Amino acid sequence: MEIRVAKCAGFCFGVKRAINIAENALKGLKAGENIYSFGPIIHNPQVVEGLLKKGLRVAGGLKEIKSGTVIISSHGAPLEVLKEIKKKKIKLIDATCPFVKYAQHIVEGLKKDGYRIIIVGDDTHPEVKALKSIAGKDRISKKIGVISQTTQNKENYINEIKKILGEDFSEIKVFNTICNDTSKRQSAARSLLKDCDLMIVIGGKNSANTKRLWQICKESGVDSFHIETEPEVNKKWFKGKHCVGITSGASTPDSMVKKIIEKIRRFQRS
Amino acid sequence: MEIRVAKCAGFCFGVKRAINIAENALKGLKAGENIYSFGPIIHNPQVVEGLLKKGLRVAGGLKEIKSGTVIISSHGAPLEVLKEIKKKKIKLIDATCPFVKYAQHIVEGLKKDGYRIIIVGDDTHPEVKALKSIAGKDRISKKIGVISQTTQNKENYINEIKKILGEDFSEIKVFNTICNDTSKRQSAARSLLKDCDLMIVIGGKNSANTKRLWQICKESGVDSFHIETEPEVNKKWFKGKHCVGITSGASTPDSMVKKIIEKIRRFQRS
Repeated sequence: MEIRVAKCAGFCFGVKRAINIAENALKGLKAGENIYSFGPIIHNPQVVEGLLKKGLRVAGGLKEIKSGTVIISSHGAPLEVLKEIKKKKIKLIDATCPFVKYAQHIVEGLKKDGYRIIIVGDDTHPEVKALKSIAGKDRISKKIGVISQTTQNKENYINEIKKILGEDFSEIKVFNTICNDTSKRQSAARSLLKDCDLMIVIGGKNSANTKRLWQICKESGVDSFHIETEPEVNKKWFKGKHCVGITSGASTPDSMVKKIIEKIRRFQRS
Repeated sequence: MEIRVAKCAGFCFGVKRAINIAENALKGLKAGENIYSFGPIIHNPQVVEGLLKKGLRVAGGLKEIKSGTVIISSHGAPLEVLKEIKKKKIKLIDATCPFVKYAQHIVEGLKKDGYRIIIVGDDTHPEVKALKSIAGKDRISKKIGVISQTTQNKENYINEIKKILGEDFSEIKVFNTICNDTSKRQSAARSLLKDCDLMIVIGGKNSANTKRLWQICKESGVDSFHIETEPEVNKKWFKGKHCVGITSGASTPDSMVKKIIEKIRRFQRS
């Protein structure tokens, strides 16, 4: 059985940047001081675990934070959270991914110019929550602005735009806010799907871009599994398979991909 | 056999306005003076014929005009023509439809802002030629602006936009420049098509909006004929039909619709 690894692997730019920001902040951590991230700084539990060991605390809400420093995660935070942090005079470090910032900037502009704003993405994801907070209340307008969560699947996005085109509009502005890393990772997965009869997608179960990679793999009809760590790999999956493709999300460390490949090789030898 | 006439009939706003402008200009026509229209002022040969009788001359090109007055048709004229008229110091009267003017204004803005401009329409139509002259040379940009000929069929337009969505873009601005009259006329035709087993589309053979009405009728599978005048009505068409739908283009006079209905009634009585 052949093992093929997708050409795009390793942390994306925004994830690498957020981890660096957190690690630098933690280097200066003094006794009695607290450094929080607002929600998980990236959507990979194993990486977050590593940061917790270095002293980071993950706050689920602002109520948990009385003083100290709060790091805004790579996905951004809602406006009301940023205002509350300012009001509470807590030190803020912004690790929002620059591509997410760009999407936020577009939403700001659309709001200012009176557009009805449509965000195509997962309603419960922190990035979308932050974008929605900037967009504000839904308004009626024949001028429509459409943006996508940065980790969206382009096909999903285009299907949503096609529905919007059926509406009564005077103007539709469509922004391609899907980040380059997401597009490349999806293309690389699609390319593997042509030759493989099994796909393993590695990444946080809470990671939007990993879930979409998995969705693309499943929709192709190829047997596909989404795992976070090597103990999840199951020997049965490989029975009768000729080629296994390995792909990973933007917040999955290379070390985890290596561990999983080693596990598969051990299965092959045994 | 029932005869049903589409709810939207008669001249559209832009056509009515262009005819009024021409008639007013011709009222003041002095001996030895020439008033030209640059191309047919609207796309209905019978109406143009009427204006010719009142003294209008139709110029195919600027070479035919040495002096006098030139009326720009409802479809607008290319920039180079407007410049040449200015240079030749010929008096200009602009009968460009305000909705076409609006489309021209959008193209100007897109050009200024560095967009690649895509015009969805008939390449050989004077409206599209004028829009193309404003857009200038095709340029490479990931920012794409899309507009439609004002008399386009919305379904055609949406299909073209869907193709563009597959391209590599950073932003797509889609303007709904299909004029309200065109949309209403197309909806009224679609509504007739539900009940009728024969459709007669009345209007200039050179009229884009009439041709698109006919296209919509044909595509529905209902027997459909595009005619300009009553002698074209053929008795054979009505054999075994239960309901005939009548629709007409934006430059078709009501009087022509009446004549054709009378002709059909005569066939029924005979």
